[in-house]
Amino acid sequence: MCRFVFYLGTPIALGSLLTEPANSLIHQSFHSHEREEPLNGDGFGVAWYVPGHEEPACFRSVTPAWSNQNLRDLARVTTSGCVLAHVRAATQSLQVSEANCHPFRRGRYAFMHNGDLGGFEAMRRPLLAELSDEAFASIRGTTDSEHFFALLGDGLDRLGEPREPRTMAEAFRQAVERVLELRARHAPVEHVYLNTVLSDGHAAVACRFTTDEPANADSLYRHCGRRYVCEEGVCRMVRTRGRGEAAIVSSEPLSEDASWESVPVNHFVLLEGSEVTALEPVLA
Amino acid sequence: MCRFVFYLGTPIALGSLLTEPANSLIHQSFHSHEREEPLNGDGFGVAWYVPGHEEPACFRSVTPAWSNQNLRDLARVTTSGCVLAHVRAATQSLQVSEANCHPFRRGRYAFMHNGDLGGFEAMRRPLLAELSDEAFASIRGTTDSEHFFALLGDGLDRLGEPREPRTMAEAFRQAVERVLELRARHAPVEHVYLNTVLSDGHAAVACRFTTDEPANADSLYRHCGRRYVCEEGVCRMVRTRGRGEAAIVSSEPLSEDASWESVPVNHFVLLEGSEVTALEPVLA
Amino acid sequence: MCRFVFYLGTPIALGSLLTEPANSLIHQSFHSHEREEPLNGDGFGVAWYVPGHEEPACFRSVTPAWSNQNLRDLARVTTSGCVLAHVRAATQSLQVSEANCHPFRRGRYAFMHNGDLGGFEAMRRPLLAELSDEAFASIRGTTDSEHFFALLGDGLDRLGEPREPRTMAEAFRQAVERVLELRARHAPVEHVYLNTVLSDGHAAVACRFTTDEPANADSLYRHCGRRYVCEEGVCRMVRTRGRGEAAIVSSEPLSEDASWESVPVNHFVLLEGSEVTALEPVLA
Amino acid sequence: MCRFVFYLGTPIALGSLLTEPANSLIHQSFHSHEREEPLNGDGFGVAWYVPGHEEPACFRSVTPAWSNQNLRDLARVTTSGCVLAHVRAATQSLQVSEANCHPFRRGRYAFMHNGDLGGFEAMRRPLLAELSDEAFASIRGTTDSEHFFALLGDGLDRLGEPREPRTMAEAFRQAVERVLELRARHAPVEHVYLNTVLSDGHAAVACRFTTDEPANADSLYRHCGRRYVCEEGVCRMVRTRGRGEAAIVSSEPLSEDASWESVPVNHFVLLEGSEVTALEPVLA
Repeated sequence: MCRFVFYLGTPIALGSLLTEPANSLIHQSFHSHEREEPLNGDGFGVAWYVPGHEEPACFRSVTPAWSNQNLRDLARVTTSGCVLAHVRAATQSLQVSEANCHPFRRGRYAFMHNGDLGGFEAMRRPLLAELSDEAFASIRGTTDSEHFFALLGDGLDRLGEPREPRTMAEAFRQAVERVLELRARHAPVEHVYLNTVLSDGHAAVACRFTTDEPANADSLYRHCGRRYVCEEGVCRMVRTRGRGEAAIVSSEPLSEDASWESVPVNHFVLLEGSEVTALEPVLA
Repeated sequence: MCRFVFYLGTPIALGSLLTEPANSLIHQSFHSHEREEPLNGDGFGVAWYVPGHEEPACFRSVTPAWSNQNLRDLARVTTSGCVLAHVRAATQSLQVSEANCHPFRRGRYAFMHNGDLGGFEAMRRPLLAELSDEAFASIRGTTDSEHFFALLGDGLDRLGEPREPRTMAEAFRQAVERVLELRARHAPVEHVYLNTVLSDGHAAVACRFTTDEPANADSLYRHCGRRYVCEEGVCRMVRTRGRGEAAIVSSEPLSEDASWESVPVNHFVLLEGSEVTALEPVLA
Repeated sequence: MCRFVFYLGTPIALGSLLTEPANSLIHQSFHSHEREEPLNGDGFGVAWYVPGHEEPACFRSVTPAWSNQNLRDLARVTTSGCVLAHVRAATQSLQVSEANCHPFRRGRYAFMHNGDLGGFEAMRRPLLAELSDEAFASIRGTTDSEHFFALLGDGLDRLGEPREPRTMAEAFRQAVERVLELRARHAPVEHVYLNTVLSDGHAAVACRFTTDEPANADSLYRHCGRRYVCEEGVCRMVRTRGRGEAAIVSSEPLSEDASWESVPVNHFVLLEGSEVTALEPVLA
Repeated sequence: MCRFVFYLGTPIALGSLLTEPANSLIHQSFHSHEREEPLNGDGFGVAWYVPGHEEPACFRSVTPAWSNQNLRDLARVTTSGCVLAHVRAATQSLQVSEANCHPFRRGRYAFMHNGDLGGFEAMRRPLLAELSDEAFASIRGTTDSEHFFALLGDGLDRLGEPREPRTMAEAFRQAVERVLELRARHAPVEHVYLNTVLSDGHAAVACRFTTDEPANADSLYRHCGRRYVCEEGVCRMVRTRGRGEAAIVSSEPLSEDASWESVPVNHFVLLEGSEVTALEPVLA
């Protein structure tokens, strides 16, 4: 499967997430701590928001993240207050292409996924049949992730402008419910694993969900603090009692300090500004 | 658009088609004689049949053909009696991926296309709705060409085993008729341009078709002879009165000799063994 | 050969140079106006300076610039006050690799080249023998351009800190003289073509030089103005009598207005801030 | 580091080495049994000899072997009686390029290496200074392996035509001795690790050598038998008392049968036809 990191807060260099931490995303790409497969070498992607541009920028590549010099250089000089980064281990290795790399975008939204819609091949045609023409045409690859995001995007469009995490969570909940209906009809013995982040640059909804036993859910962590700091190769959150300035949601802790909290299984994490505003169940 | 070459006959080195002729396919990739855009740099592909393997082998890449060392080496040592080779100029350059490179395959069939289904975006959903689950699942990219081939492939499956060009032409005719119906309903003012080759390694159907004025059809040539010979960089067909040993269908003549014949617009070329067995209208 | 654009002035979006102008660098990559070969599809690169980072960032790729989605996205959101961008047509197409893409970097310097050191293969070993260990080890590819820059870089190191264009031009002159000596000894009948830009982010030296007839020099233009503006797809310099805010040196004019001036053959253009400070002969 | 497989014998499908065995080279690329780093994702290459072509064909790529569809297809249809295949884990991941992928070629010879010339950066300039102009010009990348092979290639040229493994071993011994002299002068505290195969398609010399403690030598195995057979995913050597028809030298056993023999440290394995003709010490 895959690994990802999401950052929301005071602008930081992309490198603080991708290259500098002891367990940076690039390090996870070839040495994941919490997965059986040690390897995430089937492409990567990073989306970041830039002031003055509603649509996030995106850099994706099918070559492994660990040897991509363009990524290293970009990470060195680029700062952003909202970053989604992802390394991919293709479920089916033969489908490695840029179009299958996360994050995916739709207008101002960016989305990434670690997990698997079990029985996706059986669900794919009925799922496509429900999409708007715009969402249908937006699909460029073959992943379950991109198809789910197309469904979710239609829901976000229906909800319109209010940019707040609770609205995004509501659209997400509806998309999950729709997928569960498709699963019930077309792939009832398969399981859904949905660790994801959806953001518009200001707010975000992270999700840790599975239809499997909770113990089988993929790992997901969150970390909030006053500021995220990298000094001489050691990155950590500086926590204070005051208002937070940075939040991270990540497949694995990026550092060894004890303040990474596991996201409860089958819950959303709602984020706004740089703070976690709520934890709530995915399904009512 | 694109350029292609098809060879059927006595086994030859791939290089005799791809690299050696004065107007080889690789030369056409950066210096096409008969197209307004000089450039076919959006990927290439070659499919070839190998004795003992029903399914053709395929090599495709998004890097330009002219600088691909793997292609040059492969072309040097590989021989085949049935070869489809294609260089791509993406209609929409942003959709350059291996999955969008020709030739496409389905079981023992290989297919390549130079042209354009005008209004494809409007036809795509209804076309997909008609496909078998197998054909639907086989689609990996976003080109009109691959979608047309999925439709054609379903027709070939219905016709079953008889491996003769007339049967393949019949399936092709039905697929064209279906596309014309979709066009009439969804994109009536757009034009279809279908210069293609379909082969199973023994027989083949080439097609030069358009709904536009015949004068606007893309170019297509054929050449049959006793043997295709490259000597000191000059490639030519050696013609005799006896039975032919080689046939070529190509977007452009590969050599300057006068024996390249233009394929009549809106006609199929049927080939079997190494001979053209018939020319017949695409539509009855 | 190649095409390049250099910008120095008020920060602008990279897209204003790479994608927006009628004759943008990406357009030149497949449709050059002033070269016999229409094609620059053997990779591209862009280096840009970011406040707070002495070393420029660099993005290079072997895929054609016109279809690179990462480049388009990067160009959309990234701004810089000093940009070097280059599209490559490999003299020897088989040597296409990221290491052979321009611009090249050394510490705070970036360098790009359009042209050819004739007889480079004969000069290469003696040229390498003169390099410092650091310059020798910095060479990652096989181009004449990178080797020339290694020689130039050693000269820049000897001159030390003074960051002014006249010092850079002096180092450049010495490197040219050294190359002419190597040519005299090892490849006397070959010609040198050196259209280049060298910059440290604040100052720059552009060069238009050849040992051939002046009429055979590659084209090079400069344009200075109060501001470089792109509006609805039309980019132009807004000229006033006041102090300039932007300077461009480019293989071809980026727009149709008449204010592009040809750089005299065998001359340096010295730039500092956003102004041309001098034109002077390459050789005393 | 890297993993490799060498085959000499009755022609077999490349897939029998690369994809079919339980511990195939592609499997080793993401799940090596005998190395600390689990990962060989920094490119791969395969060279194979084709009757009628003295120079071997070569297919190399910087994308991971496990997801390369071209490789899988090529492996399916291509047969050869002499194959060198290699997956790379770059010592310095930032130097991933096709030019740095093994095998390397020179005329009829192919060469691949698993290991490391410790202190190579210090040895590189004096090593280059000893090369013939031809060997110097042949170097396209930056690896210690390619530089060593350039030195070895000059020795092979001096020995001329006699195609027998003992002559090749003699050239190899001289190259090792030269490297040990360079090491003594320029990098005396570093260690050399040379697990390699050199072949001309008919004969071969494999080498397992280190200046380190023998216990620290990289693993290398050999297997000879009457025929190499893959049936339903299980590949094995069929051994008989008669004359062998196939020999394999490999970084790791490809199958679980007990007949893989470890190559003694600091020894050459000489092969001719399809048989091991001798084991002899690298240094006299």
